[in-house]
Amino acid sequence: MSRPGQGGSQGRAVGREACSQGRPIGVALLGCGTVGREVLRLLTEQADELAARVGAPVRLLGVAVRRPRRHPDVPADLLTTDAAELVGRDGVDVVIEVIGGIEPARSLLLDALRGGRSVVTANKALLAECGPELYGAADAAGADLYFEAAVAGAIPLLRPLRESLAGDRITRVTGIVNGTTNFILSAMDSSGAGYAETLEEASRLGYAEADPTADVDGYDAAAKAAILASLAFHTRVTNADVYREGIAEVSAGDVIAARQLGRTVKLLAICERVTDGSGAESVSARVYPAMIPRSHPLASVGGAFNAVFVEADAAGALMFYGQGAGGAPTASAVLGDLVAVARNRVAGGYGPRESAYADLPIRPMEDTPTSYHISLEVADRPGVLAQVAQIFAEHEVSIMVVRQTGRSSDDVPAGANLVIVTHAAPDAALRSTVDKLAGLDVVRDVVSVMRVEGDVT
Amino acid sequence: MSRPGQGGSQGRAVGREACSQGRPIGVALLGCGTVGREVLRLLTEQADELAARVGAPVRLLGVAVRRPRRHPDVPADLLTTDAAELVGRDGVDVVIEVIGGIEPARSLLLDALRGGRSVVTANKALLAECGPELYGAADAAGADLYFEAAVAGAIPLLRPLRESLAGDRITRVTGIVNGTTNFILSAMDSSGAGYAETLEEASRLGYAEADPTADVDGYDAAAKAAILASLAFHTRVTNADVYREGIAEVSAGDVIAARQLGRTVKLLAICERVTDGSGAESVSARVYPAMIPRSHPLASVGGAFNAVFVEADAAGALMFYGQGAGGAPTASAVLGDLVAVARNRVAGGYGPRESAYADLPIRPMEDTPTSYHISLEVADRPGVLAQVAQIFAEHEVSIMVVRQTGRSSDDVPAGANLVIVTHAAPDAALRSTVDKLAGLDVVRDVVSVMRVEGDVT
Repeated sequence: MSRPGQGGSQGRAVGREACSQGRPIGVALLGCGTVGREVLRLLTEQADELAARVGAPVRLLGVAVRRPRRHPDVPADLLTTDAAELVGRDGVDVVIEVIGGIEPARSLLLDALRGGRSVVTANKALLAECGPELYGAADAAGADLYFEAAVAGAIPLLRPLRESLAGDRITRVTGIVNGTTNFILSAMDSSGAGYAETLEEASRLGYAEADPTADVDGYDAAAKAAILASLAFHTRVTNADVYREGIAEVSAGDVIAARQLGRTVKLLAICERVTDGSGAESVSARVYPAMIPRSHPLASVGGAFNAVFVEADAAGALMFYGQGAGGAPTASAVLGDLVAVARNRVAGGYGPRESAYADLPIRPMEDTPTSYHISLEVADRPGVLAQVAQIFAEHEVSIMVVRQTGRSSDDVPAGANLVIVTHAAPDAALRSTVDKLAGLDVVRDVVSVMRVEGDVT
Repeated sequence: MSRPGQGGSQGRAVGREACSQGRPIGVALLGCGTVGREVLRLLTEQADELAARVGAPVRLLGVAVRRPRRHPDVPADLLTTDAAELVGRDGVDVVIEVIGGIEPARSLLLDALRGGRSVVTANKALLAECGPELYGAADAAGADLYFEAAVAGAIPLLRPLRESLAGDRITRVTGIVNGTTNFILSAMDSSGAGYAETLEEASRLGYAEADPTADVDGYDAAAKAAILASLAFHTRVTNADVYREGIAEVSAGDVIAARQLGRTVKLLAICERVTDGSGAESVSARVYPAMIPRSHPLASVGGAFNAVFVEADAAGALMFYGQGAGGAPTASAVLGDLVAVARNRVAGGYGPRESAYADLPIRPMEDTPTSYHISLEVADRPGVLAQVAQIFAEHEVSIMVVRQTGRSSDDVPAGANLVIVTHAAPDAALRSTVDKLAGLDVVRDVVSVMRVEGDVT
């Protein structure tokens, strides 16, 4: 287990020679929660298979946890509370991080990378926040940084994006990347129930956490969007660059309105390459609930499943589907990465580096072209549609579809329901159109406003 | 462009040093048909992007074709009819093969690999036939052999299978891997038309070739099944190991019968790890039309699209969806591989080797557990069901569902339709059950026999 000359390129060279003689690959595991326990199980149960696939035995050297007593199943001599010591220990080639959160994960992984150790992490928050810093450390030391588990759990997605499609030009990535919100929206779609009661049911069934904020407010999806956009467009996108809306405002009425248009509501993470009139490129990364056609491959992704729809110039449309969370699926992705980085060490090479050469600017949400669905309760009298259409015209928003249905009841004065779907226009223009519409005398209520996505353009 | 010490490890070592100083990666293109032309286009249009992704310029050194006059768009100084010379030319690091067929592709690629050159190929027939030989040559020379384009066109599938899921245990791969047959079956399902007229329509629309044998008789899908099974189970499976039935026998009646069971007919490539009573493992690879539940993710894969459904112990169910054929999608996959092998050369490493360590036996079709759907026209008199059930019992085939519907008409004697779906049993037992049923006096006609797949077990 002793290995001289750890750190930087010298350590790698020595390691390479030793590895080719079958020196074991030493692994440090940081964290032992839901995912960590499954990683441990797979490391043990699949030891022979892993060795065959890597070309050398894979040896677990330690497991860093906060409270060792809570882990009676882990051999005591592996447990440690001193994660920093474990990361720096002789013989550690690969550090697997499944702690989550920014610190201490960030410092530990930076130390690992600077010491020439390869890193496998499932930590989307850390990558979305400090990705460039980690990439930089990995590049400087010639070490691998792999994170398949950070987006869409077990779905092999990051490797296809950064490797299989490396010779193509990706134009758009549209993902359902949060299982909790997809479970809630799928349930609202099939039951017709409202948001609050469906969230309650999701909590009862274990699909939503006690504090569901990170999921329902879109923070989790936004972190994944940042990672996906960085990889798809070879540029740097962080959390702060992602526009975000959650699903708490989605009403039973929105879901019904979507159904009437042959659509369904999904929380989408959208990463798009946008070219403006002068040919200048920028990147838009955004998360919000949107109505997509029921015929779209993403529409049939139900329950807690995840799927990512990728559009590329040559490849056309691709979709990746699978379980986005859970201990075993996430551990499967972690082990896949472990095999890759361990193989790289045995072979003496390393995987593809970060490619952030494109260095594209981020397009602000206001300027991003989107389409809106707007449902209004209006007074049922001549000239209303003309008044409404005038507001759209003033904002240079072009209308694609209008549907007007009369409504009469004894309780309220004669009214009509007006459903409008727009062509794409800058988001700011659409927003101020909606604001102006809400202020019109003839508009009694803005029933539903939601973006529409996924149409063939 | 001159590079001393070509061939084997010495050539690689020299290349490695030179590459890190930005030496261009030399590419030879063998073949310039539908896919080749698109590869050429992408190599030219994406030259800057490719260089950025690879870390060195990618330079096309020659294009081998049979009839140079047919390629007026290719710069004349690149064209050659001497493919063997091009493969051996100084400065060629990567050979891209899009000729198809066994020879001369096999000899050319073996020469390339033995000379230490990396190979990217879209040739499924060659891989399914001579995979082990090519793998052996690649291993011996320390060169890369990549073939993402050989299965399911642009869908990034092989890399996820052999890399992302390398830490998991794949139990089953079920794919729609032939666009022509999926187009025909999808059309039969929506139109109710028969096989012959639908094939004619597919030919007219360009979805079927003039000689559609390789597609409709399942040879193309079988070659892909061999490749998928090898990768998924880390063992060697060749064309000859794959059981194969095509779609020419699928009738409009079969499609209707499937619909009545809430199913749809798809030509499936199935690769399965089977464990027998004693715990011994074997591999089953087979291609046939089967009825799958309409709720199965593969059921909604329509037209010429491809999709592959993967089941793994930890990852659970995954699906990969996209365009399975066509010049541009296939070229996208070829370019992805080119970037990977070029990156490996720049870094001085190489990708994962063939892992055929499992060395599993092939389970003959007769012994493979399958389930059958059987539709019979029987005499409508008491005791018929008992007689039929007796045949199943004699073959130890357990019945899951029986549905009997009376039928009366002036033209024929009173009869009934009997639909039976079985539990899984060895295929040979099911076949002889059907043979015996056909010989029964009370059975007037065997209307439809088809395997059923995709049920949750």
